[in-house]
Parts: sequence; C-alpha cells; structure tokens
Amino acid sequence: MSTQHPGTMSTKTIGRQTIRGAVLYGPRDIRFEERDAPTIVQPTDAIVRVSAACVCGSDLWPYRGISPVAGPSPMGHEYCGVVEEVGRAVKSIRAGQFVIGSFFASDNTCPNCQAGYQSSCQHRELVGGAQAPVLRVPLADGTLVATPGVPSDDLVPSLLTLSDVMGTGWFAAHAANVKPGKTVAVVGDGAVGLLGVLAAKQLGAERIIAMSRHEARQRLAREFGATDIVTERGDEGVARIKELTRGIGADSVLECVGTQESMMQAVRSTRPGGSVGYVGVPHGVELNGEELFFSHIHLHGGPAPVRRFLPELIDLVWNGKINPGKVFDLTLPLDQVAEGYRAMDERRAIKTLLRP
Amino acid sequence: MSTQHPGTMSTKTIGRQTIRGAVLYGPRDIRFEERDAPTIVQPTDAIVRVSAACVCGSDLWPYRGISPVAGPSPMGHEYCGVVEEVGRAVKSIRAGQFVIGSFFASDNTCPNCQAGYQSSCQHRELVGGAQAPVLRVPLADGTLVATPGVPSDDLVPSLLTLSDVMGTGWFAAHAANVKPGKTVAVVGDGAVGLLGVLAAKQLGAERIIAMSRHEARQRLAREFGATDIVTERGDEGVARIKELTRGIGADSVLECVGTQESMMQAVRSTRPGGSVGYVGVPHGVELNGEELFFSHIHLHGGPAPVRRFLPELIDLVWNGKINPGKVFDLTLPLDQVAEGYRAMDERRAIKTLLRP
Repeated sequence: MSTQHPGTMSTKTIGRQTIRGAVLYGPRDIRFEERDAPTIVQPTDAIVRVSAACVCGSDLWPYRGISPVAGPSPMGHEYCGVVEEVGRAVKSIRAGQFVIGSFFASDNTCPNCQAGYQSSCQHRELVGGAQAPVLRVPLADGTLVATPGVPSDDLVPSLLTLSDVMGTGWFAAHAANVKPGKTVAVVGDGAVGLLGVLAAKQLGAERIIAMSRHEARQRLAREFGATDIVTERGDEGVARIKELTRGIGADSVLECVGTQESMMQAVRSTRPGGSVGYVGVPHGVELNGEELFFSHIHLHGGPAPVRRFLPELIDLVWNGKINPGKVFDLTLPLDQVAEGYRAMDERRAIKTLLRP
Repeated sequence: MSTQHPGTMSTKTIGRQTIRGAVLYGPRDIRFEERDAPTIVQPTDAIVRVSAACVCGSDLWPYRGISPVAGPSPMGHEYCGVVEEVGRAVKSIRAGQFVIGSFFASDNTCPNCQAGYQSSCQHRELVGGAQAPVLRVPLADGTLVATPGVPSDDLVPSLLTLSDVMGTGWFAAHAANVKPGKTVAVVGDGAVGLLGVLAAKQLGAERIIAMSRHEARQRLAREFGATDIVTERGDEGVARIKELTRGIGADSVLECVGTQESMMQAVRSTRPGGSVGYVGVPHGVELNGEELFFSHIHLHGGPAPVRRFLPELIDLVWNGKINPGKVFDLTLPLDQVAEGYRAMDERRAIKTLLRP
C-alpha cells in the first residue's frame, strides 16, 4: 500500500478500509465499533490478521473504572494470527507465518532485552487494539515469534495464552524461583494464577497450594497440578499456609492479583529465604520496608518479559506438553466482546476467548 | 559455678562478681558502668571473654534517639574472644577456643537455619551487652564458630568484623547477586558499605561504584576495590550511575543505609533484571508497589545470616585474603566507649574498636 501513488482510486479505497473492534469509552462501556484498518506506519511494523484474541484480567481495571481511561481506547493486547504484511525493515518475520507476540513490543537487541527483560526494552511500545480482526505490531522482528507451521484450530487457544496470560504465569513461577521438589503457593485464582499453577507443576514443584474459594477454579487448579486448596484469605490464609509448611511458609509464592491484601498475603506466606514472584499489576500497594526486611524474602516481578519465554512455551504447546488454553471457559464471536467483559467482571467466566 | 552449693563463701564471692560495660540510658547518654558478670543461664549458653568489641552503625539509631530505648540497655552485639565456660548441653564449643558469633544467636538446625537464614532461626535470640569484658552467648553450638587457633593480635580486628559488619557487607553482595565481571554500586559509605565494596571485589565484580562524599571513606573504598566514586545523591546520584552504565543502571546495588532516600537511590540505580541487596535496617521506608513492579528489579535483604558465612570468612581472614579490619580507624580502651560513640556519631570515625 505504501508504494502506491496517493490520490489513485485504489489507494483511496484501501485508505478507507475499516475494521470493527472493541473500544472502551468509560466504566463498563465497551463498544464494538468501526475504525480505520491498521496499516504499516514504521518500516519495522507488521500487520497481523488476528486468529484469536481475548480479554485480560488487567483489562478489567479500566473496565471497572479503577484505572482511568483517557478517551475512547481500542482494547486488547493478547493475540496470535497470520502475518499479512511487513514493513521494509522487517527481516525475520514474513507474510503467511503464524505468529505470537507480547503485549509489549520490543527490539530484542537492547541491553535490557539481552538481559531477558524485553518488557523493559529501551524502545518498548504497548501493543493495543488486539480485540479486532487486524492488528499493527511494532518492532515485528523483536516482538513476534513464528510457530513451526500454521497450527490446527484446537491449538490456537493454547498458543493465544502465550501472548500474555501463560507467559505471565510462567514468569511468576520463574520470578518466585520455583524449583523441583519445592512447595509453592499461588495467590489469585484468575487465569494468571491458574496458569501459575500449571507453570509451577511444569517446573517440578512437589506441592502446589492454590488459594481459591471458587469451585470451578479449584477444579481447574487441580487439573493443572495443585495438590492443596486453601480457601482462607488474609491473615487466615497465611496461617493456613504456615500450617501446611511446618510453620515456616512456602518456598515460592506467586502473587497474581495486585492488591495490598494479596501482596501482603504473598509476602507473609513465604518462608525466610523464599521468594515472591509478583505479576499482578499493583494498584495502591505500599510495602513497609521494615516488615520486608525482617521477612527475609526475595521479591521479584513486573510486567512479564513474554518474548523471553515464547520459543520455549511454543515448543511445549506445539508438542502437547501443556494445554494452557483450558483457561478459556467462554468463547464468543468478537462482536459479542461486551458480554465477554461482563462475564469476566461478574466472575461467571475465568477468561473469554474472542474469535474475529 | 552452677555446681557449687549455694551459700558457701566462694559462691557468694563469685555470685557478686561484676564487670564494667557500656549501657545506653537515652539519646547520647552512654555510660560505662558496673553490672553483674554474666553467667550460664541456659545449658546451651557459653561465656566468652571478649578480646575486642566495637560500635555498630545500628547502635547509632538508639544513640541518636531515632529508635526508642526502653530503659538502660547494655550495648554491643559484635564480639570475638576466648570461651571461658560452656553449659552442660554444649557439644562442639569448648573452653579455651577463640570464637566469633553473630548478633543473632541461632540453633543452626531449624528449617530456617538449614536454608541459610540463621538470623531468622525459629529460636533466635539477640545477643546483647558485648561492649563489655565478658559476654553470655545463647545457643553456643549453633552461634559460635571457632577459629583454627588463637589468633595473633593483628588478626583480631578483622576477625571481629565477621561478627556483623563484614558478614553484613558480604550478605549485601550475595543478596544483590554480585557475580564476576558485573557492575556494582554501593549506597552508603559507612563501615558496612565499605565492606560491601570489599565483598563485591572478592566476588569478582569488574566495576564497583562507591557512593561517597567523604574523602577518607573514598580512599578506603578505593583500597577495598572501588573503581569509581560518585559523590552525587538522590536523583542526581541515580543519573550519575545511569551515565556510567550505558543508561541502564548497575547489575547489583548494595543498600547499606536504611533510609527512604537511600533505598530509592538503590532501586532506581539498578538495571531491569538487576538486584538490590539491602542490609541497612529500614527506618520509615515505604516502597511503592507500582514503581517496584515496573523497575523489574530483584529485591532481597534483611538482617545478615552471619552464621552462614562465618566459616568461609574466617578462612579468608585467617589466610590473609581479606583485611576487613581496616574499617577500624579509631581504637579505644573500653572505658572510653562514650568517645567511641561520639566519634562515629560526628562521622569523625568510620568505626570504633573497643579493647576491654
């Protein structure tokens, strides 16, 4: 498109191409509406035809009005699909490939990327507007990873999770230093927490304690590898974890919520010398330095550097070793995106998959 | 003593034995006064004739009135010396041995001790009153480590540092994940910070940036292995560290102060994926969850598990590989302890060694 002469009929027609995608206007006001189709803006961009997208737990913060929204915002940052077009500077990604990318675009070459923290890339850009049939992904070479081939349809949900929710659960387990034979506790029974259970199992944890009071989620947690369920929360939840761990706490705790209560529950459930991996975006969380000091815990987390894990996770899904797509308990056509948000907001659904 | 019949002349005489040691009464009111000599209270105790003690940076918090003092408090928790007597349950420590112990007594057998966090021992007890000629050390077998023999006098200052200040600098470097070839920054130019420099050097760091605006301390930092000195503090200090590290921050930062400013200086000086090791006891420190999350740093610290490091550090001192005793730039007889505190409070001395 970019090589055509402006003003010709075909350019005009293409220039006016539109798509319909999800746009958040304000608290609980999500609309499915028409906008211009994305096009190559930078020579490092790729345009991806979205095979599947979904609603993220973090989308619920602005949906619920807890995070402010500055005007109408195209929503969605989890995606996989087929490359339609790439900019002239893109070297490794080609049209026709099935790809998965992170919610943070990264160059994958800067010092932070090389250290494995692509979500702190010096040139990172948030990918937005993925709840749509077509998506522009910046820094395509550093962001997208192609699967070995075009996947069968049944693999698509699991591949989609790698874009964020599975990558985030995986990072939580790594950040919490999960090792074979260890005891792990998971705070949060959303999709990230549940996939944190799966990650801990995959990394060889012996005992995995899922904290949940929701039956369907408990069931999925057990299916993913949880050995114990704790329904108590706050101080009572901490006391229960201590009871289950000789009074000292878990070796690794995954914090997958982002509230003050969940963070303190995680910190206080960890044994001295143990680790908290926190991936719930903190909302109003303050940590008291003195308590943290005497807790003797390791603390690590942040936005998951999904790009680091994509090759390994694609391999695990492709070869049927893990099936994280099970977190999707609601699949809707994209035009019913509003119901997808409602169902998650009301905890009727763990996670909604959207098919354009 | 405990085996003698009560009421005999000798018991009475021994029972009335007194020593003179440092006692803090209130802000800047430290006295050298008589009290009962310590005796075996628990069968797991040892009585140690103190060869050398010292004043800790953390002693200055109550001395300055920042931490409250509940009545007259015998001071001092850093010590080495010769065992005079042990309780009947003590198995591995014997009278006549030269020993070093931590400020936290530990059983060295509970799960936390076995994990290497003896300062979170389930039976830990603070050792107090070491600024005196004789000291009771609880849980002697789990707390004290004997040197290969009675050391020559010139080794005593370095051995003394292992009781806390060197063990703490060493822990800071471990907690900050210092590795060969890496770039390390040290916040705080007190004795702990300076020995953090020495620890980073010993662990193979390539570049060691000491943050100090005090000439004598800068000199000692360079002697211990610092390659760069940064005199700026706060945001300017952070900017300077970034300048020195390709704009991304240091791999490892040792926080050796414990104030809000020093903690934030450490967090913000660390590259994404890097580590802060914090050993300054936090006073009024609050960490914002969101900032910490997006910083992508690892955070670990707390009261140093000195016991874990004692065998290795004794070996390094004994064989002349490290000379941490250089931090003592003032040596006083114990009865001049008040001047020892004053000199450190006024930053005329880095650290005061006290000879009973």
